[in-house]
Amino acid sequence: MSVLYSALGQAFAEIKDLKHGLSILNWDQEVMMPPGGAEARAHALATLTGLAHARLTDPALRRLVARLGRGRQRLSPERRRAVQLVQEAVTKASALPGELAEAIALHESRALETWRAARKARDWKRFVPALQRMVDLKRRAAEATARGGPLYDALLDDFEPGATMADIDPLLDELKAVTQPLLRRVVASRRRIDLSPFVGRFDLDAQAAFARQVAVAMGIAPERSRMDLSTHPFCGGVGPDDVRMTARYDARDMRGGLFGVMHEAGHGLYEQGLDPRRLRSPLGGAASMAIHESQSRLWENNVGRSRPFWRHWLPRLKRAHPSLRRVGLEQVWRAANAMRPSMIRVEADELTYNLHIILRYELERDLIEGRLPVRRLRERWNEGMHDLLGVTPRHDAEGVLQDIHWAMGLFGYFPTYSLGNLYAAQFMQAARAALPRLDEQLARGEMGPLREWLRRHIHRHDQLYTAAQLCRRVTGRALGVDAFRAHISAKVDALYG
Amino acid sequence: MSVLYSALGQAFAEIKDLKHGLSILNWDQEVMMPPGGAEARAHALATLTGLAHARLTDPALRRLVARLGRGRQRLSPERRRAVQLVQEAVTKASALPGELAEAIALHESRALETWRAARKARDWKRFVPALQRMVDLKRRAAEATARGGPLYDALLDDFEPGATMADIDPLLDELKAVTQPLLRRVVASRRRIDLSPFVGRFDLDAQAAFARQVAVAMGIAPERSRMDLSTHPFCGGVGPDDVRMTARYDARDMRGGLFGVMHEAGHGLYEQGLDPRRLRSPLGGAASMAIHESQSRLWENNVGRSRPFWRHWLPRLKRAHPSLRRVGLEQVWRAANAMRPSMIRVEADELTYNLHIILRYELERDLIEGRLPVRRLRERWNEGMHDLLGVTPRHDAEGVLQDIHWAMGLFGYFPTYSLGNLYAAQFMQAARAALPRLDEQLARGEMGPLREWLRRHIHRHDQLYTAAQLCRRVTGRALGVDAFRAHISAKVDALYG
Repeated sequence: MSVLYSALGQAFAEIKDLKHGLSILNWDQEVMMPPGGAEARAHALATLTGLAHARLTDPALRRLVARLGRGRQRLSPERRRAVQLVQEAVTKASALPGELAEAIALHESRALETWRAARKARDWKRFVPALQRMVDLKRRAAEATARGGPLYDALLDDFEPGATMADIDPLLDELKAVTQPLLRRVVASRRRIDLSPFVGRFDLDAQAAFARQVAVAMGIAPERSRMDLSTHPFCGGVGPDDVRMTARYDARDMRGGLFGVMHEAGHGLYEQGLDPRRLRSPLGGAASMAIHESQSRLWENNVGRSRPFWRHWLPRLKRAHPSLRRVGLEQVWRAANAMRPSMIRVEADELTYNLHIILRYELERDLIEGRLPVRRLRERWNEGMHDLLGVTPRHDAEGVLQDIHWAMGLFGYFPTYSLGNLYAAQFMQAARAALPRLDEQLARGEMGPLREWLRRHIHRHDQLYTAAQLCRRVTGRALGVDAFRAHISAKVDALYG
Repeated sequence: MSVLYSALGQAFAEIKDLKHGLSILNWDQEVMMPPGGAEARAHALATLTGLAHARLTDPALRRLVARLGRGRQRLSPERRRAVQLVQEAVTKASALPGELAEAIALHESRALETWRAARKARDWKRFVPALQRMVDLKRRAAEATARGGPLYDALLDDFEPGATMADIDPLLDELKAVTQPLLRRVVASRRRIDLSPFVGRFDLDAQAAFARQVAVAMGIAPERSRMDLSTHPFCGGVGPDDVRMTARYDARDMRGGLFGVMHEAGHGLYEQGLDPRRLRSPLGGAASMAIHESQSRLWENNVGRSRPFWRHWLPRLKRAHPSLRRVGLEQVWRAANAMRPSMIRVEADELTYNLHIILRYELERDLIEGRLPVRRLRERWNEGMHDLLGVTPRHDAEGVLQDIHWAMGLFGYFPTYSLGNLYAAQFMQAARAALPRLDEQLARGEMGPLREWLRRHIHRHDQLYTAAQLCRRVTGRALGVDAFRAHISAKVDALYG
């Protein structure tokens, strides 16, 4: 079995190397590539995607996995899990025709360029044909892999392995039910929060230097990461020793820059906390996108928007921006947590954010399930914004064209953001129980204890456990809405009375 | 035949896509990658190299090429040339075992890291085992592909297709014979050149902005290129629409930065002048490394170190660096052309540069031919520097460890630099004959006529002609030393009397 297992390791390592190539080519396209390079890059990404797919569906690999599967009782639990992960990947890839995988990869790059142009021109109609083709391709992919289940579940599984609509609908329904009355209180409240600690005129270099200081204090290792600028911040790269984060700073509003960096650094800490020995193995990588998002949101919201955090960092923020010298702790905390319905997901506060996600989830689910034609998407988007948030986009760049995901074919990704918020709150509750002096530590700028707790309980396990198993191990129960409800209700109480 | 030819095009396009991935991964490693990423990158590069090799040696491709080869009379000359290029690549790759190709790729990344550390520590001994392994691997590769000819010729062919030691030895011997008496005159001359137009204290940002302005005036299209910083400047990327140049600026000496940018922009113009429709075809790419180098050296030396160039650019340089306000045209021209034996190839003047190359050529030829053991290389280097240039390195970082090439396994590359100088002089002679008002144009800052002439006669042909064919087409004769002799003798006369 050991010989077979190491043959599996070797075969999978080469697939990981192709994914390494894809990851850097994607990062480069977003952050570095000159615009002229788009056409050639589309081909290169499609070919590498096709090769990874061909490797994963190689009959020799399938035979190897089958033999290891039959002898699984003689494998260690870790190896058994690795074989299971390869088996799932092989089964899924084998169901997807290679030409379709390449066609999707090729269309991704092109749809992305079309989306960019359409967003810039605020012209939804320009994006429709590219999105229509993407929906068609993804529906075909889902049909190929769904094994009789709902099409949307097949796509969701790419980001949240094992999760289904049947699992997440009740969670998101409950989350909506928690959020809506709180939002009504926020909107009805007469309290106005003073945003001047973050809104005004702030030097961009000083913002970047401060954000970098926070990221390093969180534990981001500079010799194993980069931080660049990009219009759509993200965290990419190739695992623990080469993490690529990006940021965007706005001279008029510091919140997006600072909390964006804490968000991406939360993703980055997860990546840097993975076991480097597993990088090229089937076990290497995050448990799921929702678990990944839980790490970013925990640092962004549960830490970065907390009073103890600001006790340490406010004096440092004042040194970076002397105009803030008279700002008080309560004032900066309130400004960091101000809530208000708005158009743009990535700028949304912690409360309304999930409504943005629920809208996208419902729309993409209906697109994939064939209940919503692409041409009606814009109308349904605007209706949804009105119903859920009480606002209407003035143009499509702040409406249906705002997100990159659908242009990249990422259907099934959005719900992982809200699941991530729920996991974050539940993990933070467990961390507080395990680290009774956490608030004192954060108030002294000591983020190490929390980081090491996350590393020990979450990061270093890679994909050894599913998201659901990990949640039970770390928090003692299945994912629910309670921890988030407690967290967000307390904030609304304090802020809007 | 047309169906067969398009099957060939498709197969080769995927090989080009893999090379696209390799090119960006290499650029990223030099310019962007955090140090921690080296180990994973080594694996990814090795796997992609192995995949490209596997594709090139795929029996289906070999059969396709054989069938097209048998019917070559029915192909257009362009397609016939494409088939010939694939045939050569397939034959060469098939002779090289896949494991050896991957082992070399894997060792390249590691030897590179070792070389960096050894150079930093000025510790030749630390590099010896890595270099020994590289020489062994490259000798094995040469043995596999040499088909009975000399081992070194097999490696030279990777960079200068079709060239052999028998071709280049007479050229380099003649070049040495031309250079040595000129160098003796330079060394014996009592004339001292005032370097103050370039040597002193110069703002780095102003240097970069000026160099960029020159590159754009040369015709570099910003939307199809990048210019970054790296310790070892180079030009990479993936063809006409995505050119990646790098630069290095020194506050104390502007020459390396400015002429380095003109050099890399010369490479960049060649890349941007290639036919974008051929990018993924067998014909796409430069005719040879010497032709590539001719383009960089022509802009760097024949244009950038000419009086007409400075007539236009000196006033602009003065605006960028007000301390130069009293510098005259003759003064800047002399400073740009000052000659002096020195340790570092990339900082060498136009005259002594070729002696640096001749030394490296003789050493690497002897390493590969088995006439020089790696452990004696340092000693032979220092002897050679003394014999050819009359100087002795004070430490190995300015001696045998200065260049990246051998660490990357690039044996057979160095001579293309001197061949490039010879081609540059001969092409410039032809350009002058075709553009009688060239000096007036350059003196007005008009670099377009020269660029378009190069584009029309050299760049846009990709690999349609061999380097030797191209040289005959463009200049009417085979490559020789005469044009370079005339060019360099005139400079030595003017500068050192």
